[in-house]
Amino acid sequence: MDLIAEIITIGNELTTGFQIDTNGPYLAERFQSRGIIVQRMITVGDDRSSISRAIRESMARADVVVVTGGLGPTSDDITTEAAARLLGRKMRLYPEALEHVENLMGSLRLEMNEGQKKQAYFPENAELIPNFIGSAYGYLIKEANRMLFFLPGVPREMEAMVERTILPRIKKERKNRRHYRTRALMVFGISEAEADELLQDLPQQDKDGQISFLPRFPEIRIRITVQASSSQEADEKLLYWEKEIRKRLAPYIFGVDGETMEKAVGELLREANATIAVAESCTGGLIGHRLTNVPGSSEYVDRIVVTYSNQAKVDLLNVPEDIINVHGAVSEPTAHFMAQGIRNSAGTTFGLATTGIAGPAGDSPGKPVGTVFISLAAGNETWTKLYHFSGNRLQIKKMTSQIALNRVRKYLLKKNLGQSLTR
Amino acid sequence: MDLIAEIITIGNELTTGFQIDTNGPYLAERFQSRGIIVQRMITVGDDRSSISRAIRESMARADVVVVTGGLGPTSDDITTEAAARLLGRKMRLYPEALEHVENLMGSLRLEMNEGQKKQAYFPENAELIPNFIGSAYGYLIKEANRMLFFLPGVPREMEAMVERTILPRIKKERKNRRHYRTRALMVFGISEAEADELLQDLPQQDKDGQISFLPRFPEIRIRITVQASSSQEADEKLLYWEKEIRKRLAPYIFGVDGETMEKAVGELLREANATIAVAESCTGGLIGHRLTNVPGSSEYVDRIVVTYSNQAKVDLLNVPEDIINVHGAVSEPTAHFMAQGIRNSAGTTFGLATTGIAGPAGDSPGKPVGTVFISLAAGNETWTKLYHFSGNRLQIKKMTSQIALNRVRKYLLKKNLGQSLTR
Repeated sequence: MDLIAEIITIGNELTTGFQIDTNGPYLAERFQSRGIIVQRMITVGDDRSSISRAIRESMARADVVVVTGGLGPTSDDITTEAAARLLGRKMRLYPEALEHVENLMGSLRLEMNEGQKKQAYFPENAELIPNFIGSAYGYLIKEANRMLFFLPGVPREMEAMVERTILPRIKKERKNRRHYRTRALMVFGISEAEADELLQDLPQQDKDGQISFLPRFPEIRIRITVQASSSQEADEKLLYWEKEIRKRLAPYIFGVDGETMEKAVGELLREANATIAVAESCTGGLIGHRLTNVPGSSEYVDRIVVTYSNQAKVDLLNVPEDIINVHGAVSEPTAHFMAQGIRNSAGTTFGLATTGIAGPAGDSPGKPVGTVFISLAAGNETWTKLYHFSGNRLQIKKMTSQIALNRVRKYLLKKNLGQSLTR
Repeated sequence: MDLIAEIITIGNELTTGFQIDTNGPYLAERFQSRGIIVQRMITVGDDRSSISRAIRESMARADVVVVTGGLGPTSDDITTEAAARLLGRKMRLYPEALEHVENLMGSLRLEMNEGQKKQAYFPENAELIPNFIGSAYGYLIKEANRMLFFLPGVPREMEAMVERTILPRIKKERKNRRHYRTRALMVFGISEAEADELLQDLPQQDKDGQISFLPRFPEIRIRITVQASSSQEADEKLLYWEKEIRKRLAPYIFGVDGETMEKAVGELLREANATIAVAESCTGGLIGHRLTNVPGSSEYVDRIVVTYSNQAKVDLLNVPEDIINVHGAVSEPTAHFMAQGIRNSAGTTFGLATTGIAGPAGDSPGKPVGTVFISLAAGNETWTKLYHFSGNRLQIKKMTSQIALNRVRKYLLKKNLGQSLTR
C-alpha cells in the first residue's frame, strides 16, 4: 500500500501572494523520492477556523499530514492552538522545549517574553521534534492511525527537521518496507524532445524504475526513481538506470542532484590545475558571478572584466580599435581578440569571452537582438562561435553564460581524453 | 460583503515538487490588490477524482474559484472533462475556439491533431476567455451564484488572461462597487522592526487603508492597500498613505512596485549624466550583473573588473603591491585604491569597489567571514567603509552588492539636494 500525504502551509503572506511557498514543493520532492504520494497541497491564512478545517479534511484523506507555519512566538502564530482544539487535546508545557528556548535566548543575550514561552507549549501526548537552528520546536501527533507533523515555516529550519526527523520517523512507522532511491542527472545542450528521442530504447519503465523530465531553463533534470524490497537491490537498480541513461546522454550530463554548471567547470579546472579569466560584454558579469558562487573559486578564477564600452575593450583587452571600428563590438574578430586579450593579460590557462546584443534595444541590420559571439582561448588556439538566442534580456544573459561555461567544460573533458577540441 | 476566492492549481509536476507553483501566488496577489480575499490555495495532481473533489469543495466555500492547468492538448490534460462531469454539463464544440487553434497551427505550419481539436471543446453554457498568446482558451462557468474560471497553466498565458478578462469580469459582476488601489514601497537599509517603529504614529489603519510588511532579503516591501466608494477617492487615499509613509521613511525608499535597486541607481546616473565603473572582489561580478540587467545600462556603465587575484588588483587597478602585502587584499587601503584605480582607468564619474571574505573559507585572525570593505570614489574624494555581514556566501555577495549600489544612490540623491556626502 502506498502512503498518502497531504501538505498544509499556513500564512497570510502566502494567501496574499506576498511570498511564494517553497516549503510545500520541498516536502513534495522529498516525499516523492521516498515513494510517498502527495495527494494535495493546501495553503490557508493565519485564521483559526481555516487552519482547523484544513487539518480535519486532510486527516480524513491522508496517512501523513504535514503542517508548516504558525509555530512562532507572535500572536498570529495560532497553528498549535487550532490543532489542540480540533483534536480535543489539552495544551501542556514541555520542559525540554522550554529549556531549548531559554538556552537560545540566553546565547543571544535576550530576555524571554510571553511569546517565546508559548513556544514550549504543545498539545498533550505529542512527540517533540527538535529544532537545531531556530527556537520553534516541531511535533508529531498520532491520531486515528494518522501521523500529523507540525513544523515551523522557516525553510532552513523546516528542511533540517524533515531530513533529521520526519523522513526517518515515517520510514520507521511504515508497514510497506520498500526501499526507495532517487537521482537527478543535470543535462544541458539538448532539448527535452531530443533527449526523449535518445532514450526511446531504454528498458520499459514500471513502478520499480521510472524516469521523468524536469526542464528548468536553460537546463533539464532527468530524474530516476527506483524502488526495491532490499536496500542493496535499490542501489543496484538506481545504478543500472543511471548507467543506461549515461550511455545515451553522456555528453550532455554535467552533474547530479542539483549541481550547477559552474561547480562542474570549477571541479574540472581544479583537477587540471588550470586557471581562467573572463572578458564579458553582453553577460555583464553573470559569468563571473556564477564562477565565484562556488566556494574556493579563488583558486582558479584570476579575473573577470566586463568591458561594456568600446574604450574598455581597447584599454583592458588590447582589442585593436580598427577591429571594433570595422567589424563592430559584436563581431567574431572582436570576440576573438577579447578572449586572447584577457588570457594574455591574466596569464591564465583559459581566456573566455562573450559579446552580443542582450536587448531589448541595441540591434542593427544583420545583428538582431540575441546575436552573441562566444570565444575561448586556450593553448595556441582560439575558437569563436556565433549564436542566435531568443528570449528577454535576462534569458539571453543566462543562456550565453551557460554555453560559455559549457565550452570550458567540454574542452577540459576532451583534454582529459587526450583529444583536441573540434568546433 | 467581501468576495471570497479559492485557487486550484493542477499538475503532477507540482505535487511531486518538480516545479514551484507561481500561478497561485500571482492570482493571490492580483486578487488581494482588488480586495478579493483568497481563502485557500489548493494544488492537486492530474487525477480526475482529485480535481473534481477539489472543485466541488471550493465551490461550496467561495464566490470565485479559479482553476489553472490541465487545459492543454495532451492526454493528461483532463481538467475540463472532470469539471463537465462534476457540473453535469455536456461537452460541446465552440467554433470560435476551434478557429483560434486552427489559425495558430496554420501560422506555425503545423497539422492539427486530435489533442489540439480537444482544446475547442468546453462544457455547454461556458463563456470563453480568449488566449492571445497560446492555443488553450480559458472559460468561465457560472453556477449557483459562483464564478468558476478555468485557465491554462502556462504563466504568461494565464497572467494575460487574468489582466484582460478575469479581473474586469469579476469587477463587472460584483455587487460591492468598491474601488481598490495598491502600491508597494521598496525599502532598504532599515530593519522591519525599525520601520515599524518609525511608522508607529501613522493614522489608525482600518479596512479602508492598510499597510503590511513583506521582507524579501535584503529588502522590505511596504504595501499599501486602500479601498473607497469612488475611483477618485481611492486615488486620493492611496496618495495620502504613500505620502505619510514617505514622510517617515524617505531615506530608505528606493522605488515602487517591485523596482530594483539597480534600476533606481541607473535612473539617477542617467539623470545626472554620470557614468560608473566597478572593481569587484568578493562580489565576483554580481554588481556588474545587476547593473547590466537594466536595459540601456550601456549608457552609464563603462566597465567592471573582478579582480579575484592580487595580481589582477595590481595590473588592472594600480593597487600598490606594498599596500596589499602590508594590509592585505581585504583592507580599507586596498578597497580605497581599488575604487580610485577603477575610476582613474575608466575616466568615469564614479568608481565603486568591494573587497571582502564571502566564505565559507578564507577567514583570518581579525577578519572573519563576512568582513567586507565597500569604497566609493567620486570627485576628489574616496569613502571607504567596513561592514560585518552574516549569512552564507551568496547572502554576503547579495548584501554587499545591495549596499554598494545604495551608496551610489545616496550620493546622487544628496548631490541633487546640493549637499555633500557625509560618512
